Amino acid sequence: MQRTTVALDLLGGDEAPASVIAGARLALAADPDLAVTLVGPPELAEDLPVVVARQVVGMDEDPARGVRSKRDATVRIAARLVRDGAADAMVSVGSTGAALAAAVFSLGRVPGVTRPALAVIVPAPGGPLVLSDIGASSDAGADQLVQVALAAAAYATVALGIDQPRVGLLTIGEEPGKGDQLRRDAWPLLAALDLGLGGPLRFVGSVEGRDVPLGGTADVVVTDGFTGNVLLKGLEGAVRAVAQVLVTELSATAETRAAAKVLLPSFAEVSRRWGPEGAGGAILLGVPGVVVVGHGSSSPAAVAACLHQAAEAHRAGLVGRTTQALGLLVARRREQAGLQGSPS
Amino acid sequence: MQRTTVALDLLGGDEAPASVIAGARLALAADPDLAVTLVGPPELAEDLPVVVARQVVGMDEDPARGVRSKRDATVRIAARLVRDGAADAMVSVGSTGAALAAAVFSLGRVPGVTRPALAVIVPAPGGPLVLSDIGASSDAGADQLVQVALAAAAYATVALGIDQPRVGLLTIGEEPGKGDQLRRDAWPLLAALDLGLGGPLRFVGSVEGRDVPLGGTADVVVTDGFTGNVLLKGLEGAVRAVAQVLVTELSATAETRAAAKVLLPSFAEVSRRWGPEGAGGAILLGVPGVVVVGHGSSSPAAVAACLHQAAEAHRAGLVGRTTQALGLLVARRREQAGLQGSPS
Repeated sequence: MQRTTVALDLLGGDEAPASVIAGARLALAADPDLAVTLVGPPELAEDLPVVVARQVVGMDEDPARGVRSKRDATVRIAARLVRDGAADAMVSVGSTGAALAAAVFSLGRVPGVTRPALAVIVPAPGGPLVLSDIGASSDAGADQLVQVALAAAAYATVALGIDQPRVGLLTIGEEPGKGDQLRRDAWPLLAALDLGLGGPLRFVGSVEGRDVPLGGTADVVVTDGFTGNVLLKGLEGAVRAVAQVLVTELSATAETRAAAKVLLPSFAEVSRRWGPEGAGGAILLGVPGVVVVGHGSSSPAAVAACLHQAAEAHRAGLVGRTTQALGLLVARRREQAGLQGSPS
Repeated sequence: MQRTTVALDLLGGDEAPASVIAGARLALAADPDLAVTLVGPPELAEDLPVVVARQVVGMDEDPARGVRSKRDATVRIAARLVRDGAADAMVSVGSTGAALAAAVFSLGRVPGVTRPALAVIVPAPGGPLVLSDIGASSDAGADQLVQVALAAAAYATVALGIDQPRVGLLTIGEEPGKGDQLRRDAWPLLAALDLGLGGPLRFVGSVEGRDVPLGGTADVVVTDGFTGNVLLKGLEGAVRAVAQVLVTELSATAETRAAAKVLLPSFAEVSRRWGPEGAGGAILLGVPGVVVVGHGSSSPAAVAACLHQAAEAHRAGLVGRTTQALGLLVARRREQAGLQGSPS
């Protein structure tokens, strides 16, 4: 198999560069077909291959402005490596906004996409699912939700290995008339795509907030970036909250403390599954390249998970599948424009 | 102390009337100053006081239409008892929409309120907080979020016993410019209320999804009904998902199974705190009466918790405090109308 090369932002993340380098070593040890190109100051790269970049777009900086003004920013150089074919994918555990801005700036968008979306895999007990958008854009319109649905369905075929993923629209209440205006507008568009064009989208109607952590009702959950971000952060917080309450309860007596000791590995396993280490990072959908962004607090294991996720998405042909899925939308628009242009 | 009378919908809930009657008995046994008036078919009421109502607005029915067409619906009669002073509060564990529609239909709205909001108390480990709106209305405008903030702050003074609750706006990212258009519009209005009028509102800026389950950053979290509903159902699902994963992990070996047995009461305690039994139901804010709506799946203990919550809200003067808080908004609007009417 040909090696997959991932460009890795050496300066992103709370513990950079140490955690980034340690993560790269972990990933390289686990995957003989992986190559990592660090992007950052060469004097920090130890013995790993490096492409020079000396600027960083900080977490507290305006991402678009930072990327535009810093020609030598790590994320901008990394995205350029992907654009030029010198890397197959890029990973950053720095500012999500900066990675996103750099990707769109250097790579552009897949035809049919007006704004890219971020997706994560939620390791729900009823079955893992793709949740998107989790914050790439706010104030989405119904047409954007259709783009998110197609791109996220393409990602589900790649990441979950499901040929015809079930796509659900995140809303409140189960009937088509329920939810807010955006959901009422998006519903018939999604239902029409399903019926009219075939392709990778199998629309199963609405799902509710509980379906995301529990799983089982859809393989892809489509929402706007505002709602998706609030929900995802809420779920992460809920898992931590339960852990905090359990720890308090478990310290109550000597008997429970002893039992807790036996179960600590199980709790650790639950946290791992739900935390960034298990699930990898967020992947950017709708750009012609593989871009993964991890938590700023990523440990070496979490950095390695992001590298693995990026390499696998490249190997499974994410960009081709996304382009194909969005092509349905482009074809449909052309068809409608044609029909409207020449009424019989 | 004068007795507090709560009108209780005898036909609402998956297990009605058995769970409703059992819940009433539990609550009456625990609170000697409580009286319960059942609202429903007298032949089902056993030996408890009852006001006759024979129709029910079902979970799958259009709530507003159901309430309008069914003059003899339990929720409509219950709301009328509150309006006429025959009851101090009402509780239903049936259709939330029906209880809401009946309350607005019979009681009207507190001055300054265009649409009432639903609020719950989230038992976060960092400190309990009020989350509102959790689904009374979709497609809120910025002005409605201000109403939610004032009414929910009034509820926090009553339910959490905090004189000057910290009010946070649920959004993504921490800066005033972050979030979607609705949040960007609401931010300056909330900040201005805080500075300009004093009163019960202490605006602490933005909070994120994780702050709701973890607590500690705000006593009141303000959001639109769509986002609030998705988040709340997500949190409930996450707690169940963690429990499911833990149960699987805990069955792995004889040692972990033995430890799990010791800890089962602790898990039950966590579930109780997070479930409907511990936290009561959702309370309707912005109507001139106390209205509590519980989960359709409420157990007798959960029904009793709703009765307790409703009685306490009445005793603490919820309606008066809400009216006072919203009065700030009414006064401000009048002031602005006056200023605009007569420019100097």
